Amino acid sequence: MPTITVKLFEGRPVEVKKELAEALTRESCRVLGCEPGAVDILFEDVKKSDWATGGVLWSERD
Amino acid sequence: MPTITVKLFEGRPVEVKKELAEALTRESCRVLGCEPGAVDILFEDVKKSDWATGGVLWSERD
Amino acid sequence: MPTITVKLFEGRPVEVKKELAEALTRESCRVLGCEPGAVDILFEDVKKSDWATGGVLWSERD
Amino acid sequence: MPTITVKLFEGRPVEVKKELAEALTRESCRVLGCEPGAVDILFEDVKKSDWATGGVLWSERD
Amino acid sequence: MPTITVKLFEGRPVEVKKELAEALTRESCRVLGCEPGAVDILFEDVKKSDWATGGVLWSERD
Amino acid sequence: MPTITVKLFEGRPVEVKKELAEALTRESCRVLGCEPGAVDILFEDVKKSDWATGGVLWSERD
Repeated sequence: MPTITVKLFEGRPVEVKKELAEALTRESCRVLGCEPGAVDILFEDVKKSDWATGGVLWSERD
Repeated sequence: MPTITVKLFEGRPVEVKKELAEALTRESCRVLGCEPGAVDILFEDVKKSDWATGGVLWSERD
Repeated sequence: MPTITVKLFEGRPVEVKKELAEALTRESCRVLGCEPGAVDILFEDVKKSDWATGGVLWSERD
Repeated sequence: MPTITVKLFEGRPVEVKKELAEALTRESCRVLGCEPGAVDILFEDVKKSDWATGGVLWSERD
Repeated sequence: MPTITVKLFEGRPVEVKKELAEALTRESCRVLGCEPGAVDILFEDVKKSDWATGGVLWSERD
Repeated sequence: MPTITVKLFEGRPVEVKKELAEALTRESCRVLGCEPGAVDILFEDVKKSDWATGGVLWSERD
């Protein structure tokens, strides 16, 4: 606790997720006053063809 | 807002998701009175071997 | 199948959710070619103080 | 109803998911008093490089 | 790991959730071969007016 | 994009969520190189009687 789920477009290298997991955990502990071991981060990659805004898939915009 | 997540069996072509994103966005705006740009649609493909109803995986039924 | 989750700001009357459930189910069946009984819709109300865009809670904007 | 989502590290064979789906459905029906057909189980595989605890990805620990 | 989310109609007493948490944890450990401490169970209560099947809210059926 | 969901025990004041939303958005933009306006944060309060670890509800531990 807390458990943080991050949905982001696929293609990010592991190094970026690693750095983001560290940063989100550090900030969560600072603001909430919890132990790092209590923080879980889950990344969920999303394809641009699986996300639409305004009714248009992001894969149709590029 | 709103954010709509659609879980469906994998295998649907992008054209179907494209049409469904358009339709769900249009109907959401009509009923809720919001702008299309406020609507996000996310599709999540699910394998038949990852979904069970009544304790039986859908991959075991076909 | 499919299972559709709709996150929206709290405060919508049941009549609106009822109409939206009908519309999203109808459109899903039309596009995906499935039976209405296969479609589940879940609404999740979100408080404006529980949603932030650009780092600012929506409750701070009104 | 109920709908049960199980997030687990990827790599489990289908036989394990099959057995787990049976067991979770049986126990849910026993405790909640519902019909097996009312229980949906969804499995979501997670890569070790997509899950961090304490700010460290599980892929960095092995 | 695993993390199990259980969506169920609201109104179940804590004793039922307590028993269900024990049962789902025990079965997950038996099948997956994991420690009980690795299993997280989250219950999410859903109102009958927030769940529709076949385009009809469950609150409209009773 | 990204969309970040934070599940945490209920009871945190809005000021804490406000500060956490700012911090998570800032760090996400720094690491991912995105605009603040692209970041959505959703908080989901969880009761201690709705979360179990090791088969025991957190409400039974205090």
